[in-house]
Formats: sequence, C-alpha cells, structure tokens
Amino acid sequence: MRLATFNHKGRRQVGLVAADGRTVTALDLKSADPARGMLAVIHQLAGGGAMPATTGAPIPLAEVKLEAPIPVPRRNVWCVGRNYHAHAKELQASVFKNNAADPTSWPIFFTKAPETVVGPGDPVVMPGDRVSSQIDYEAELTIVIGKGGKNIPRDKAMEHVFGYTIVNDVTARDVQIRHQQWDLGKSFDTFCPMGPWIVTADELDGSNTRVRLWVNGELRQDAQTTDLIFDLPSLIETCSRGITLYPGDLIATGTPSGVGMGMSPPSWLKAGDSVKIAIDGLGELENRFVAG
Amino acid sequence: MRLATFNHKGRRQVGLVAADGRTVTALDLKSADPARGMLAVIHQLAGGGAMPATTGAPIPLAEVKLEAPIPVPRRNVWCVGRNYHAHAKELQASVFKNNAADPTSWPIFFTKAPETVVGPGDPVVMPGDRVSSQIDYEAELTIVIGKGGKNIPRDKAMEHVFGYTIVNDVTARDVQIRHQQWDLGKSFDTFCPMGPWIVTADELDGSNTRVRLWVNGELRQDAQTTDLIFDLPSLIETCSRGITLYPGDLIATGTPSGVGMGMSPPSWLKAGDSVKIAIDGLGELENRFVAG
Repeated sequence: MRLATFNHKGRRQVGLVAADGRTVTALDLKSADPARGMLAVIHQLAGGGAMPATTGAPIPLAEVKLEAPIPVPRRNVWCVGRNYHAHAKELQASVFKNNAADPTSWPIFFTKAPETVVGPGDPVVMPGDRVSSQIDYEAELTIVIGKGGKNIPRDKAMEHVFGYTIVNDVTARDVQIRHQQWDLGKSFDTFCPMGPWIVTADELDGSNTRVRLWVNGELRQDAQTTDLIFDLPSLIETCSRGITLYPGDLIATGTPSGVGMGMSPPSWLKAGDSVKIAIDGLGELENRFVAG
Repeated sequence: MRLATFNHKGRRQVGLVAADGRTVTALDLKSADPARGMLAVIHQLAGGGAMPATTGAPIPLAEVKLEAPIPVPRRNVWCVGRNYHAHAKELQASVFKNNAADPTSWPIFFTKAPETVVGPGDPVVMPGDRVSSQIDYEAELTIVIGKGGKNIPRDKAMEHVFGYTIVNDVTARDVQIRHQQWDLGKSFDTFCPMGPWIVTADELDGSNTRVRLWVNGELRQDAQTTDLIFDLPSLIETCSRGITLYPGDLIATGTPSGVGMGMSPPSWLKAGDSVKIAIDGLGELENRFVAG
C-alpha cells in the first residue's frame, strides 16, 4: 500500500493511493486525529487496531496537496551518518575528520527536530548567509517504525518496519562542522522534506532499491541501498539498545556519495534551486529552495 | 513562583508551591490538558493567556508525588556539552578528544529523546552491561523557554526564559564515545531525571547560582554558573539561529567538573546508587539507579 497524508479543500486527511497513482481515497479514521497524518493510523495499527477502511470517492491526486506523511513526528527524527562507503570517503577530510573511528564498527546516529519536516513541493527556506552559507542536500531512504520495542534483535528487526518514505536530510555544513555535534546544523526550520507517501514494507525491499537525487535536473546521487555500511536490521537493533522505539519513529538511513560538499570545489545550494529525489518503488520528492 | 507538576490521588495536576515549601495548590487549567503538566501552562501564557488561578485547598507536599515539570517534552531536550572550563579539561582525553576545536568558539549542542524524562524520586533504569557498563551523571541547570522565537539576539534572549529546572543528564559514556555523535548514549529510557519543579525567571538568577551533585552522600560536583563557558543568552542565541524555539523547550546548559568519567580511575554508577542534585534557589532532585 501507498499511504499518503494530504490536504483536500483545506482539510488534512490520510488516504490510500491507487495502484495507477492517479487517485487517493480517504481513510475513515473515526476517532483518530487526522491532524497527525499517518501517525494516527500507525498508532492505531500498533495498538492492535485494524487498518481503517476507505471512505468516499477516489480523489484525483492532481486535486490534493500531498503533505509529509508524518507532518510532525512525536520526537526528533533519528538519522544515520556516514552509511555508504563512497560517501564516507568523499567527506573524510571535512565532516568526518573528527570522527576517525573505524567506520565499520558502530553507526553514527544524530537527530533532526520534528519541526524541520515539510511536505512534497513545500519550500525549503534558506536561513541567510549570516546563519549558513553552505546548504547541502542528502537523499535518504527512511524507515517508518510500526510496532515499537526496545533491545530489538536484528533477526526480529524487520518485523518492526511499517514501511518507508523519502527524506531530504538538508544540512548546513558550516554549522554541522563548527558545533561538532550535528543536531543544530541538521535542524533548521524546513530542513527535512519528507514524502511523497509511505510505502508499506510488504511492497518494497528497502535493502535493495535505488536512490537518486538531482539538482536542477543534474544527477548528483545514485546508489543502491545494497551499498549501505550498516543494513536496516543493524540500524534498528542499534538504535533500540536501551531506547524504546515508538510507532511512527523515523530512521533516515544515511546518504550516498554525491553531496555538494564532496564536489571540487564544493557546490552549495542557492535560492531558486530545485532538488528532486527518486527512490525506486517509493516515488519522487521534489522541493525548491528559497531565500529566507 | 515555584510551579510543579504532581500526582495527587492518581490524577496529574499542576500547582503553585507555597513559599514555605510545605504545600502545593492546584492551578485551574480549564480547557488545557493537565496530562501535559507545566507545558499546558507555558503554552497558555505564551499564547497571551493569563496565569491560571489556584483552585481548592493547599495540599501538603508530603501527600503528592512530584513529577517532572514537563513529563513529555514536545521534542528532544536540547543539551549543551563542555560548558564549564574544568569539565572541558577533565574529559579532554576521552569524550572531547575528537572535538578538538577551540572550546571558546562555538558551543556543542546535542539532544536527549523526550521519553528519557522521569520525575523526582523515580528510578533510573540501568540497561545492563550488554548495552552499557559506563553509566555517569551530569548535574545541569536547565532553561525552560517561555516565549518562542527564531534568530533571537543575545540582548533579547532572557525575555524568552520562562524559568529554570534541574536535569540529571545521565550518560552512557561507552555508547556516547563509540557512536561519536552523542544522542544515543544520552537517550536511554529514564536517563533524564527532571525537577523538582520550575522556578520562574523573576525568582532565580540562573547566571549566578550554585550547582552541586552527590553520589550516595559524597559531594562530586560543585560549581557556580558564573563559570559557564557560554552564558545563558549565548546559548539561546546560538540554538535559535535558523531554528524556531517553542514554549516549553528545554536547554540543559552543561555540567560542571566532577563526573565519574573524570575520576582516576573512572567511577561508574551501579545499581542501588542514589544521585542527588541541588541548585541554589531551585531545590533538590534525587533519583536512585536500579538494575534493568
């Protein structure tokens, strides 16, 4: 299933996207709050409830505004750093120079504030040169947790995956580096475009799909998730050690090589740029960067 | 004012603690949700509403269970690393060795997940040696944001402080270090004792108060907040650059020297240990560590 959060005639709803991708049919959330988007459905299912039935006629996708599937996560988005070998190499002299431990030993986790999240087509607001002059993109396959849990062993980890979505882990490189811990440089308002919807785990093999990103039509990132240093079960196992994962938690799994900082000279995003991400089996997420 | 979140006869309420510290009188939240604790009051005030009136008779503090003033923050708790000179020195060869930039240039920010928060007297559950065998304490004065804002200049920063509380930024040192980014090692369930209440900014000079911590009655940390490397206005200014701060956001301002990791040999917390923090003008926060 492809499950979307969308706005139709001023009202937020969640719905099932048709196989042909042309329409979406609203789900009957009953008492659940549609303002929470797909988080309401995931909580209902994780609590033992049934999948809500569809209600009403299919609505052409062209008549709705797609929103981030989880418009406001219940806590910061978990993100993984340095999880593709080629990306580890391209930033080894900059972002990763103070993170010199064996990259194959333990994954790096950091977070993005919930209010970074925006939907497909929403503007990403650049904060101005006084705050950052090095805005960069990162295409990422993102795990959506279904059933919660703590100390989840890797052989059970995939049972906790509700599905997947796409995240652009937009990053202010100068801020990321100067504060040494990355959360600030990753948490600027609007710096987490997410969408276009959630594809459930039964319909996508997240461990083997293609991740691509274009800036103004120019292909910059292109990798298979088979190239991940830490695979999906490892990430879930690690993140849940001592930490309860909750339904609707998000784990952005890291970005391939090809970020702007890795170019020579580095190429930063500027107002007016359009960044599009495609993940096979998931869809596309495109956002324009605008001056703040 | 000292404003507490408490449980009385099975019901969560917020209330005003009497000047003599012996009773608490409930606030009439009207339509606001008392399950959110002081977050409901702070949102109401930030939205232009009036301070709720007290209701009912004073209740002896001995008859209530104090809870964390903000039981579940709306997003991860902002925390500051390496913010006292003596602490920067004691961990320069361990935690801070990969963070070699000039410590006076920019503060280090990281986060703790909202679900780490527990109240005064609540147990801190140690996750077991398989997950971490290096559990440490950190006494911290914590800012509670009142009025939200973005790009807040330092000369306006204190207008955004609703008040202060105490946080024990409990840390799994081995996990903190091996993942390089600190959020995982700081985010284990129950690893953020908070309380005993919020003291409003008009009644406490956070820039000049004494922070102490004892383990089983032995004084381990003792410093004045005048020793902060980055003062409170600087922290608010920095954290709000490009990032909107919201009413009820928490900024734990860093810990003094005297942590277990800084001892020779390092001294880790063990099941049964009691850790008490006192901040002058704020009160005390005591929690026992238990095996998971």
